[in-house]
Amino acid sequence: MALPMRNNLKHFPRFIQKLNSPKRLLCVGLRPENKEAPRSGRVFSGIQPTGVPHLGNYLGALENWVSLQDQYPSVLYSIVDLHSITQPQDPTQLKSNILDMAASLLACGINPEKAILFQQSQVSEHAELSWILGCLTSMPRLRHLPQWKMKSKVKNEGSVGLYTYPVLQAADILLYKSTHVPVGEDQVQHLELAQDLARIFNNRYGELFPEPCALLSSTRKVKSLRDPSAKMSKSDPQTMATVSVTDTPDDIALKIRRAVTDFTSEVTFDPETRPGVSNLVNIHAAVAMISVQEAVSQARGLDTGAYKKLVSDAVIQRLTPIREEIERLRSDRAHLERVLAQGTCRARELAAPVLTEVRQKVGFC
Amino acid sequence: MALPMRNNLKHFPRFIQKLNSPKRLLCVGLRPENKEAPRSGRVFSGIQPTGVPHLGNYLGALENWVSLQDQYPSVLYSIVDLHSITQPQDPTQLKSNILDMAASLLACGINPEKAILFQQSQVSEHAELSWILGCLTSMPRLRHLPQWKMKSKVKNEGSVGLYTYPVLQAADILLYKSTHVPVGEDQVQHLELAQDLARIFNNRYGELFPEPCALLSSTRKVKSLRDPSAKMSKSDPQTMATVSVTDTPDDIALKIRRAVTDFTSEVTFDPETRPGVSNLVNIHAAVAMISVQEAVSQARGLDTGAYKKLVSDAVIQRLTPIREEIERLRSDRAHLERVLAQGTCRARELAAPVLTEVRQKVGFC
Repeated sequence: MALPMRNNLKHFPRFIQKLNSPKRLLCVGLRPENKEAPRSGRVFSGIQPTGVPHLGNYLGALENWVSLQDQYPSVLYSIVDLHSITQPQDPTQLKSNILDMAASLLACGINPEKAILFQQSQVSEHAELSWILGCLTSMPRLRHLPQWKMKSKVKNEGSVGLYTYPVLQAADILLYKSTHVPVGEDQVQHLELAQDLARIFNNRYGELFPEPCALLSSTRKVKSLRDPSAKMSKSDPQTMATVSVTDTPDDIALKIRRAVTDFTSEVTFDPETRPGVSNLVNIHAAVAMISVQEAVSQARGLDTGAYKKLVSDAVIQRLTPIREEIERLRSDRAHLERVLAQGTCRARELAAPVLTEVRQKVGFC
Repeated sequence: MALPMRNNLKHFPRFIQKLNSPKRLLCVGLRPENKEAPRSGRVFSGIQPTGVPHLGNYLGALENWVSLQDQYPSVLYSIVDLHSITQPQDPTQLKSNILDMAASLLACGINPEKAILFQQSQVSEHAELSWILGCLTSMPRLRHLPQWKMKSKVKNEGSVGLYTYPVLQAADILLYKSTHVPVGEDQVQHLELAQDLARIFNNRYGELFPEPCALLSSTRKVKSLRDPSAKMSKSDPQTMATVSVTDTPDDIALKIRRAVTDFTSEVTFDPETRPGVSNLVNIHAAVAMISVQEAVSQARGLDTGAYKKLVSDAVIQRLTPIREEIERLRSDRAHLERVLAQGTCRARELAAPVLTEVRQKVGFC
């Protein structure tokens, strides 16, 4: 769930093994173009307030979020600011990033009439349930989860918040008795903790939480334009590596023109041997909402340089209305705050009775 | 703060060293008989809902709590049920223990007009602030704190809740901008974490929390009647070792008659060489509100057996009105729930604006 999602390739073999384990709950992946009749259940996902998303966030997760709000009767999307402070944040920047993320989600197509869009820290039940679930989580259970292994290594030390982050994620999900959670592959182990905690709570205190299942929603991985072996990331120090959804057409054209490819002129799709050009094909297919085969076929006769123009035009066409809508929404802070406040109210209406049940079962009242 | 406090003698040299460290904030110890003019500041302390307290809890901490409510203009006492679930609890028993603890505190003299008596889990701000403070606490900072070292060793494994317990304690204290915290010696290191977190928060986000100072309130340590080298403890498997404040006069007389002493008939006070009889002298002095010297002088001419009768009479005299009041209060569950509900309202009135300030400073709003 909570973005930004990072690459975690060295855990991949274990991830595959877990995927194949019969005890894990995984749902069939949904692609945005996969329009189906409404399903039952409740979807929950969270995104960290990192400001404006990049193209990888949009194509890898948010586009799918937009699709899910039409497919499920109850959908919650949370701007998870309690998670964001597990890393140092500048308070002024954080506040501004929360509103920027709200504007971006709305501009990308999240409809607050269909999905409850809210700010996590405004619903106190998240932290409360997290404490209770933490009392059911053993310390070693968290030690090998990807978030901690990755981020504590980077900083050479981690906070208690960073270590217990997956417990709060579990609380986020279970608080709404969510049934479906769109996740990236690097978050599957965190969702497994939520599944385990649902089971542990139910066993100890009596049936309450459904075991949420993973919607492995996207196989799309948008890569860095400067290093196609790495995921596109907001924190990439190379500014040319990442396309923000608010980049101007000129910026987008420049970044794609400079994208690392190879010395073969023809456009083909082979992520293993030609990661750079394949990344462009992927991006092209995604923004134009066509298949990879169709994208390659459109590239026929074009050299890489000409194809880059085609890709950047397609990206610009897709992102321009989003950029314009973000700009419009950013200028109306009161509207953004109102949308979040309404979302908070609706989230609380769902969370409060669940936490009351939890409190009763635990013996607090 | 949070009782039950356990023996932790092996840390004593380090504790002394810390006591002598200039950076630590310690206040002059207060004894119950030390009636002084009201001081400024706010006192906070918590007690786990273990049911009815024992004589050691009463003389070691609760008697002092009663005294503090007359000495400080603002006093909060919390039944810390969020802490209690760091160890497995039976929900029905927990609920009943919460009300028993409320009845016991009132019977021991806590006056809800003077002190805010409330149940921790009913004030959601505790868990919220705990999450935020956890993001400012490094993992190793908690590893050597007594609670974890002791309890995780006993169970050979601990939960995330048990590990992060001292962070919630810090949140309990700071949430009310408390200035004074009565603590037992084995909790001093936990209070130091609260002091550190106040400083860390203030440094990072701007001045908000006073650094709470420890009221090392009692040097009284009531020992087990069966093993005077150990503290009196509710969880002692030997029922004869511990006097509950609700024990009948016959039970009290029997337990003190059977108390382990030694083969010397004369009554003297020498905790090192005669821990058993010295424990009785200590108990006698405390319940009769006389000095140790006066207790020894009253024992002159009595052999240990006759002195035990004197001590048990004094204990019975002191505990009888408390036992009767607990019985009366237990039969009026609605009254107990009303007292706690009123306390919760008053605690929330103090906690909510502080958490709003915290949220603003962190950048959530």
